[in-house]
Amino acid sequence: MKAIGADKPFTLDEGNQFYEMDIKTPKPQQRELLVRLTAISVNPVDTKIRQSSINESPRILGYDAVGIVEDLGEDVKQFKIGDEVYYSGSPSYQGSNQTYQLVDERLVALKPSNISDTAAASLPLTGLTASETLFDVFNISKNPEENKGKSLLIINGAGGVGSIATQIAKYYGLHVITTASRDETYNWSKSLGADIVLNHKNNLTDEFKKYEISEVDYIFCTFDTDLYYEKMIELVKPRGKIATIVAFNHKQDLNLLKPKSITFTHEYMYSRPLNQTEDMAIHGTYLKDITDKVESGDYQPTANEVLKGLTADNIFEAHRKMENHRMIGKLVISI
Amino acid sequence: MKAIGADKPFTLDEGNQFYEMDIKTPKPQQRELLVRLTAISVNPVDTKIRQSSINESPRILGYDAVGIVEDLGEDVKQFKIGDEVYYSGSPSYQGSNQTYQLVDERLVALKPSNISDTAAASLPLTGLTASETLFDVFNISKNPEENKGKSLLIINGAGGVGSIATQIAKYYGLHVITTASRDETYNWSKSLGADIVLNHKNNLTDEFKKYEISEVDYIFCTFDTDLYYEKMIELVKPRGKIATIVAFNHKQDLNLLKPKSITFTHEYMYSRPLNQTEDMAIHGTYLKDITDKVESGDYQPTANEVLKGLTADNIFEAHRKMENHRMIGKLVISI
Repeated sequence: MKAIGADKPFTLDEGNQFYEMDIKTPKPQQRELLVRLTAISVNPVDTKIRQSSINESPRILGYDAVGIVEDLGEDVKQFKIGDEVYYSGSPSYQGSNQTYQLVDERLVALKPSNISDTAAASLPLTGLTASETLFDVFNISKNPEENKGKSLLIINGAGGVGSIATQIAKYYGLHVITTASRDETYNWSKSLGADIVLNHKNNLTDEFKKYEISEVDYIFCTFDTDLYYEKMIELVKPRGKIATIVAFNHKQDLNLLKPKSITFTHEYMYSRPLNQTEDMAIHGTYLKDITDKVESGDYQPTANEVLKGLTADNIFEAHRKMENHRMIGKLVISI
Repeated sequence: MKAIGADKPFTLDEGNQFYEMDIKTPKPQQRELLVRLTAISVNPVDTKIRQSSINESPRILGYDAVGIVEDLGEDVKQFKIGDEVYYSGSPSYQGSNQTYQLVDERLVALKPSNISDTAAASLPLTGLTASETLFDVFNISKNPEENKGKSLLIINGAGGVGSIATQIAKYYGLHVITTASRDETYNWSKSLGADIVLNHKNNLTDEFKKYEISEVDYIFCTFDTDLYYEKMIELVKPRGKIATIVAFNHKQDLNLLKPKSITFTHEYMYSRPLNQTEDMAIHGTYLKDITDKVESGDYQPTANEVLKGLTADNIFEAHRKMENHRMIGKLVISI
């Protein structure tokens, strides 16, 4: 089977070190599914891992997948051959930049039946990140009525995670404020349900005044946490919650959290599968909920650009676009 | 009326700068109670505030109070003259190192009827800190059955906050692990319900192995957060929660929270009253729950030493003992 990988970490200015290889199709064990992939997406995390040291070469990246179940481990209970599924999976396996992939069935759900495979590929990693942040970190209610009056600020609303987080938060009753700075990103975020879109080129304190926002219950940072650390502490309510998915470049003063008893979480979607937690099947549950809401028309897939074909050139091009930080929504690749 | 205050910040080696003064008894307004104090306690926070700059001199410290309601503001609904009450109050008022004090009724509860005033004075500030940490920060259930199987590590179990946190956590069904290092503190913590008492003179990783503890759901740090920051991250479960009440001396690396998606909170009991949050009446609710549990015999007051009389010497002596870091349970002063 075909796979795209690399033998060493590299930066983009070293040129394209990805190459196509022919490897043996693996055999699923225990609760593993073997999935024949039809579409994948590329996320910022791919670019981070591409530059980190390699334990076992070649390394195959890729953390979003859509495909058809082709074979089952002996303990699989929830899926059958022929099921159309989607998932983010776990970095403990080779990634989705290949034509077949193994995945633990607990991390998988049936893909929404009313959208294309490329559209579906936009959802798993970002949808899981947003779901964990809203339900596990912010602990919002599953009953939208109970979230009425609660407000969420998403920094960078038009990015991949921001695009699905906006929709989930809106569906579950939160008042959603996002940030953007270009006409296209403003309109994109509005179209996904943001109640207010602030301009992050301006000081957010001034933007809050302009829109008569006092403080918010929750802040979700999806861009440059160092830049926003103190600002988020200023803008969140007493006893409010802040989460980020973007690693810091500097140490920070945690005493700043004290006057308002603020809670800070470094959300990392792979903490459950990498640690094989007892509750890791919640990934399957979250994805099933997203499938339901896409099928009911409540959520829209967030794919905004499609590259055709699993090639080393397309993977490299997708990484280049990620590092450019100008993506709106998600970039997907059809296989 | 008598009060003990100081006109400027000072360190203990400058000698006793507290002095006794005669000031006008204030008149309660709106939802304020005027309380004639009968017992108070001294907390580590007194020593921190004593050394911080003064806005309005003299400054009267003191953040725990027991007494009798003597007068009512025009909007008071929950209390009547003659009620025996206890509270921690708010630093926006002059403290409890005086014979009468004003307090907002929402922060107050009837004191437990089955214990002395000095015993009751041990409970409000520490009880509120422990309640906020357990219920608001760790979000444990009010139903003990639902907390079964969850584990809490309290660093410094025999201190004021640790002593009541142990009891509340135990009552609500958690498996409680504390730390101590002397025979007296080991025995004290055990007597309050700790399931396991680790020796914090040893490496806690080794102590976890010795007692066959894997990782814990929650860690509550009540001593030297800089020292324990990385160790707590090591010992908490994936997606676990860490809280501290002790300010840092150094900046920290928040990326360490990422691999396990850890949540960190800087708990500060005065975030609600100082910010006049809509939900600040939860302090009254938490204190009422503590009163109920003391009256039913489920919680024991944590006073371990009593000084007699509101004098500048006794306040100074109490501060000296706080800074000594060898207190077991709480120090109270009868008035």
